[in-house]
Amino acid sequence: MSSRILAHYLIETAHDPARAAEIMAGEQSAGTFVKVPGETPELLERYGARVDAIKDVESVGVPSLPGSKLPKEHDGLYRRAEVTLSFPFENIGASLTSLFTTVAGNLFELSAFSGLKLLDIQIPPAYAEAYPLPAFGIEGTRRLAGVWVRPIIGTIIKPSVGLSPQQTADLVKTLCEAGINFIKDDELQTDSPHSPLAERVTAVMQVINDYADKTGKKVMYAFNVTGDLDQMRRGHDLVLEHGGTCIMVNMLSVGLVGVLELRRHSQLPIHGHRAGWGMFSRDPSLGIAYTAFQQFFRLAGVDHLHVNGLQNKFCETDESVTASARACLTPMPGIGAVVMPVFSSGQTARQAPDTYSSLNSVDLIYLAGGGIMAHPDGPAAGVRSLQQAWEAALQDTPLNAYAATHAELARALERFRV
Amino acid sequence: MSSRILAHYLIETAHDPARAAEIMAGEQSAGTFVKVPGETPELLERYGARVDAIKDVESVGVPSLPGSKLPKEHDGLYRRAEVTLSFPFENIGASLTSLFTTVAGNLFELSAFSGLKLLDIQIPPAYAEAYPLPAFGIEGTRRLAGVWVRPIIGTIIKPSVGLSPQQTADLVKTLCEAGINFIKDDELQTDSPHSPLAERVTAVMQVINDYADKTGKKVMYAFNVTGDLDQMRRGHDLVLEHGGTCIMVNMLSVGLVGVLELRRHSQLPIHGHRAGWGMFSRDPSLGIAYTAFQQFFRLAGVDHLHVNGLQNKFCETDESVTASARACLTPMPGIGAVVMPVFSSGQTARQAPDTYSSLNSVDLIYLAGGGIMAHPDGPAAGVRSLQQAWEAALQDTPLNAYAATHAELARALERFRV
Repeated sequence: MSSRILAHYLIETAHDPARAAEIMAGEQSAGTFVKVPGETPELLERYGARVDAIKDVESVGVPSLPGSKLPKEHDGLYRRAEVTLSFPFENIGASLTSLFTTVAGNLFELSAFSGLKLLDIQIPPAYAEAYPLPAFGIEGTRRLAGVWVRPIIGTIIKPSVGLSPQQTADLVKTLCEAGINFIKDDELQTDSPHSPLAERVTAVMQVINDYADKTGKKVMYAFNVTGDLDQMRRGHDLVLEHGGTCIMVNMLSVGLVGVLELRRHSQLPIHGHRAGWGMFSRDPSLGIAYTAFQQFFRLAGVDHLHVNGLQNKFCETDESVTASARACLTPMPGIGAVVMPVFSSGQTARQAPDTYSSLNSVDLIYLAGGGIMAHPDGPAAGVRSLQQAWEAALQDTPLNAYAATHAELARALERFRV
Repeated sequence: MSSRILAHYLIETAHDPARAAEIMAGEQSAGTFVKVPGETPELLERYGARVDAIKDVESVGVPSLPGSKLPKEHDGLYRRAEVTLSFPFENIGASLTSLFTTVAGNLFELSAFSGLKLLDIQIPPAYAEAYPLPAFGIEGTRRLAGVWVRPIIGTIIKPSVGLSPQQTADLVKTLCEAGINFIKDDELQTDSPHSPLAERVTAVMQVINDYADKTGKKVMYAFNVTGDLDQMRRGHDLVLEHGGTCIMVNMLSVGLVGVLELRRHSQLPIHGHRAGWGMFSRDPSLGIAYTAFQQFFRLAGVDHLHVNGLQNKFCETDESVTASARACLTPMPGIGAVVMPVFSSGQTARQAPDTYSSLNSVDLIYLAGGGIMAHPDGPAAGVRSLQQAWEAALQDTPLNAYAATHAELARALERFRV
C-alpha cells in the first residue's frame, strides 16, 4: 500500500484544471495566498500534496456555484475534471478528524472553483489499527437477528413522533406477531419528554422478550440513543441491560467523535442513520459522495449504514443509491470493515427485485414503513408481502407471476404503485 | 418565550409553497408517506410541526437542484419562499443533537423541493440550562490576551503543514517580538507525526512564557487539539499545564458531541474553526446559513467562531461575512452566549475600515497570515500596519491619509492590493 492518502474529486473551474488542481494541493498542505519564509522547496517536496491524475470530463457555459473568480483571460467556459490528489501520510497521521479536515476542509471555499465534490478516498491500513471498526458487521447482525440467506426485513415506528412508550410497545407487539425481523425508532424520536428513552426501552423490550420467550425469535430493535455522550452511553447500557440487541445513532447530528466514543463504549451493533445527508449530496457539484463519506463511519465502527432506497420518496437516483450500497459491502483495501447497507424511504414489495439485481447480494436491511403498516390486510400481510417479494427476487420470478399464488404480495402490488 | 422551537427556511418548489411547507412540517414531526394507524388528529395537534409563516420571494424557470418531482399540473415555475416552521418543545427536549436532526435532517432530501436552506433558528432558553455555553467569550478572551478597546490582532502559522515544533517555536518568537496578540495553528496542523502536539506545545510555550516573563505580555496561542476525544482532552491538559491560554478545534471534523465534551473538560477558551463550511454554504439554495449553524456551537460552548473575512480569498460575499459576525455578537434571546467572531482569509491592513464600519464593534479577532509575514519590511512591520489600520478605522480617517504619517501602513498598502 502507498504511504500516501488518496482523494478523488470532481471539480469545475474557469481556470486551467491542472492549475486549479495545484491550488487545491497547495491549500490543503503547505499553502497560503502569498509565498512566506519557511515554505522551502524541501518542505514542499516532503509535505506538499501532489496532483496524481487529472481527467477532463466536460465544459459548461454557466458556473454551477456562485462566487468563483475568473482568470484574467477567460474563454467563457467552466471545465469539469476528475482530479486525484495524494497527501503524505505524515501530514495527517492515522486520525479520522485530521483526514476529514484535509480532504474535505477549506477547499470547498476556494475561489478557483465553481464546483468541487469529494468522490472517493483511499485510507491507509494504518487506520485499522487506530480505529475500532464495526464490531458486528453483517455476520454479527445476522447472528443476533437470527436471519440468514435473505435480507433482514424491518420497519420504522410511525408516527415519527408522538407515541408514548406504551403505545410504541403495543405497536411493537403487533409487528412482532406480524413476523418482522427488525424495528427501528424514527430518527426524530430520541430521548424526548413524551417518550423518555428509559421508559421506551423498558416497555418495548418487555414485549420483545416475551415474544422471544414464546417463539425463540428475538426481534432486533434499534433504539435511537442519539444525544450527548453520557446520554448515549446510558441509553446503550439500558438497552443492553434489558436484553436489547441494537442501538441507533444519527451520525450527522452527533458527529464523528461522538459516534466513535459511542462505539468504544458499545457492546451492541450500531445502526447509523444519515439524517441531514441531503446537505452534502443534493448539489451534484458540491459536497461529498457517500462512497467517500461512509468510510469515515465504518472506521468509527458503525455496523449498519443507511443508503436510501431504490425508487425512493426522496430525490436521489437509483444509480447513486446502488453505488452507496455497493460501497458498504466492498471491503476497504487493507482494512475490510464491511457493513450492512440499510434500504429505506418509500420501500414496498415492489423494489425487491431491482434491489437484488442491482446489488447481487442479500446482505442488507430492507425497511418499509407505510409498505408494511399500510398494507390493506394489515401489518402481518405487509411483512409477508415483503418476504414473498424477496423470494420472487431470489428465484428470478417476476413479481406479478409470483403474486398469482401469493395473496399478500398481490394485495401489496395493488396498493403500492410506483 | 414560546415553548415552540422556530426554524426559518428559504425553499424553492414546483408545488404550491403552502402545500410544500406542510410537507416539511409533516416529515419533520409525525409523518410518513402514507397515513398510518395511530396518526390521530389529537396526536397531530399536539406533536405536529406547524407552518407559522410563508412569504413569497420570487419564481424561477429552472430548478436550482436536480431530483425534485413535479406536481401533476405544473406551470413551469419554481417558487421561492421564506417559510417559518415551529416545533413543539416536547418533540425535541433541550437536546442539541435532536434539534439538529429536526431542523436540518431528512427535509433536505424531500422531493417536493428544488432548493431548501435553513436560514435561522430560535432556540428556547431551556437550552441554556442543559448546555455549558462559552466559559470565556469576549471578556474572558480579552482578559487572557491582555487586549482591550481594539481588535485582537493575530496570525496563523504558515506554512500550514511541515514545520517542526522547533521551527514553529522560532517563528512564534519572531511574532512575539513583532508585537502580535494572538497566534493559531493552521487547521491542517493537528497532532501529526512531524509535529507532535506535545512537542509543539512544549517548544512554543517556552518561547511565549519567556517573552511574557520579559515583557509582561502573554501572547495567546490557539493550539489545534482536533482529534479523538481522549487526544483532545490530553492536548488541552498539556496546553493548560504549560501555561497556554487557548485551544482550537475543527468543529465540523469533530462534530457537535465532540466539541461539547471538549468544552465540558476545558478550562481554556475554545477557538472554533469551521474548515469544511463551504459544503454547507456555497450553494445558495441548499444547506445551512451560518446565522443558524453557529448557534449550535455557541450553546456547546465555543468562545471564538471563524466567520471568514471581508474581501476574502474565498467565495463568500461581504454581506454574508458581516451577517455571520453580527450573529456571533448578538445575544441569543434568553440565552446570551455571545462569542468573538474571527476574521480570517486574505486579510491585510486594507480591510480594517470596512470591517469596523460593517460591524460597528472592535470585539473581534483579526487574523492575517501573509498580511503580516509577507509585509515587505518583515513581520513586526506587518503587525504595526494592522494596528495602524485599526487606529485609522477607529478615528474614521481614510487609510491613505493615515498612511502619510505611518510608514508600515503605507508599505502594506503598496504591497497588498485588493
